[in-house]
Amino acid sequence: MGKMTGKWCTEVYKDTALSFKIKKKLYGKRSKYQMVEIYETEKHGNLMALDGCYMVSTAEEFVYHDMLAHVPLFSHPNPENILVIGGGDGGTVREVMKHKGVKSIDFVEIDEDVYTTSKKYFPALVKGLEQDKRVHFLFGDGIKFVKDSKDKYDVILVDGTDPSDIAGGLFSSDFFKDVHNALKEDGIMVMQSEDPWFDSDIIKNVQDRLKKLFLQVHLYLAFIPIYPSGMWSFSYASKKHDPRVIKNKKSKIAKFKYYSEEVHKAAFALPQFVKDAIK
Amino acid sequence: MGKMTGKWCTEVYKDTALSFKIKKKLYGKRSKYQMVEIYETEKHGNLMALDGCYMVSTAEEFVYHDMLAHVPLFSHPNPENILVIGGGDGGTVREVMKHKGVKSIDFVEIDEDVYTTSKKYFPALVKGLEQDKRVHFLFGDGIKFVKDSKDKYDVILVDGTDPSDIAGGLFSSDFFKDVHNALKEDGIMVMQSEDPWFDSDIIKNVQDRLKKLFLQVHLYLAFIPIYPSGMWSFSYASKKHDPRVIKNKKSKIAKFKYYSEEVHKAAFALPQFVKDAIK
Repeated sequence: MGKMTGKWCTEVYKDTALSFKIKKKLYGKRSKYQMVEIYETEKHGNLMALDGCYMVSTAEEFVYHDMLAHVPLFSHPNPENILVIGGGDGGTVREVMKHKGVKSIDFVEIDEDVYTTSKKYFPALVKGLEQDKRVHFLFGDGIKFVKDSKDKYDVILVDGTDPSDIAGGLFSSDFFKDVHNALKEDGIMVMQSEDPWFDSDIIKNVQDRLKKLFLQVHLYLAFIPIYPSGMWSFSYASKKHDPRVIKNKKSKIAKFKYYSEEVHKAAFALPQFVKDAIK
Repeated sequence: MGKMTGKWCTEVYKDTALSFKIKKKLYGKRSKYQMVEIYETEKHGNLMALDGCYMVSTAEEFVYHDMLAHVPLFSHPNPENILVIGGGDGGTVREVMKHKGVKSIDFVEIDEDVYTTSKKYFPALVKGLEQDKRVHFLFGDGIKFVKDSKDKYDVILVDGTDPSDIAGGLFSSDFFKDVHNALKEDGIMVMQSEDPWFDSDIIKNVQDRLKKLFLQVHLYLAFIPIYPSGMWSFSYASKKHDPRVIKNKKSKIAKFKYYSEEVHKAAFALPQFVKDAIK
């Protein structure tokens, strides 16, 4: 079949390998927590991998960040106090900043090296973050941070890596209890929750754990071409708000590259096999 | 990054390579029209590639076939006479057969070797086809076949390969004119129309050409993990029926693995960058 000539980077995930043609490797260093690599690709701009898994690429980052940030921020009628856990590349905070009504963004990333690397290789992701007085850089352990917060946030966004070493705790019942406590009574939490083709068991666990705590628990999907199957899931939980109703009429943002009200609503229409897997 | 140990098959498409771990290669032979290869994969069942591009896998074929067949068949109030062009693996015809109201299915595949190979390696795809008297096997050139048909079909499904050598004509204005003539006055045509990440220029051409002929022209999407970005598009055209309204209330089919009324409607909610690309 196909021959891979020239230089490529490759993510191997279970039985699948996804490779992109690269111009060169720009960076590769083990931080305190994980292996951080940056490639200059031919068609996707720069590409970051953490512990061998693609995280973000210049050309396609808008999908993940649009869908992680704007679905909850448009489901809440008046999001003011926001917590972002993880998301060290900066893209999620950048999207939250677009909502003029937001008053405070606590940004808690455990691995400062991810932020400094993003600053160098993905300047568009961190644009304006350090100038925006609403953004509070709090490098440290998000799990511990949430435990110490009570009744404080309108929206919590959990933008972690796969549930292996450092991010495993972000998928636990204990963490979800702390998130529940850290949210105001009509608060919303959204987290990335892996790929339905490869890891429907993880998604089911997350959804089951959230359902024990929250009234409104939903799953939604987006097309992300740098993840091995191209399908990615986000888990939504709220004590009050159904995300299929768009309640935020204040954040008038001209246009996105992925998100729209129509896309927001449609993302909750799950293919039958996904619905069955989380039942 | 990741190391691909053991045996793999690989599709290289532009700057991207998608590889699956295999147990072994089961078949590889050049037909009159194209290179036909079958792999026994570790997790996806058998996998067919034509000219180096993945076409169909046992584990995931339901997505493509559900979405190609059932979106038009549920958009038409009473589909009786159906034409399937291409789709030599049998899966599209198998889905059409599920609609009890369908009276006739003309099945025109140019490459009989694809059908005989599928019969051997994908028995679930051709199950019941030869026993169903509604199915007419007409191996030959679909483009020529359509030219000779007038005012005949309720639904035409174009299930071709990428628009290179043998399938190129299936993307042309002349072919679309013939399809328009071959359809009854409330007929519907759906065709696979490539990947919005890689080939939005092809999609725009198809949509523009169809809009010159049909009143209702739409694009819809599905998650297909064996295609390199995981996002696939289908182009819908009808002289009358808006596909966002489900008009077929007769075909009561218990359950699908991908398709549902909700998924049908949501598939037309295009991410903004796709909308912009075909504008």
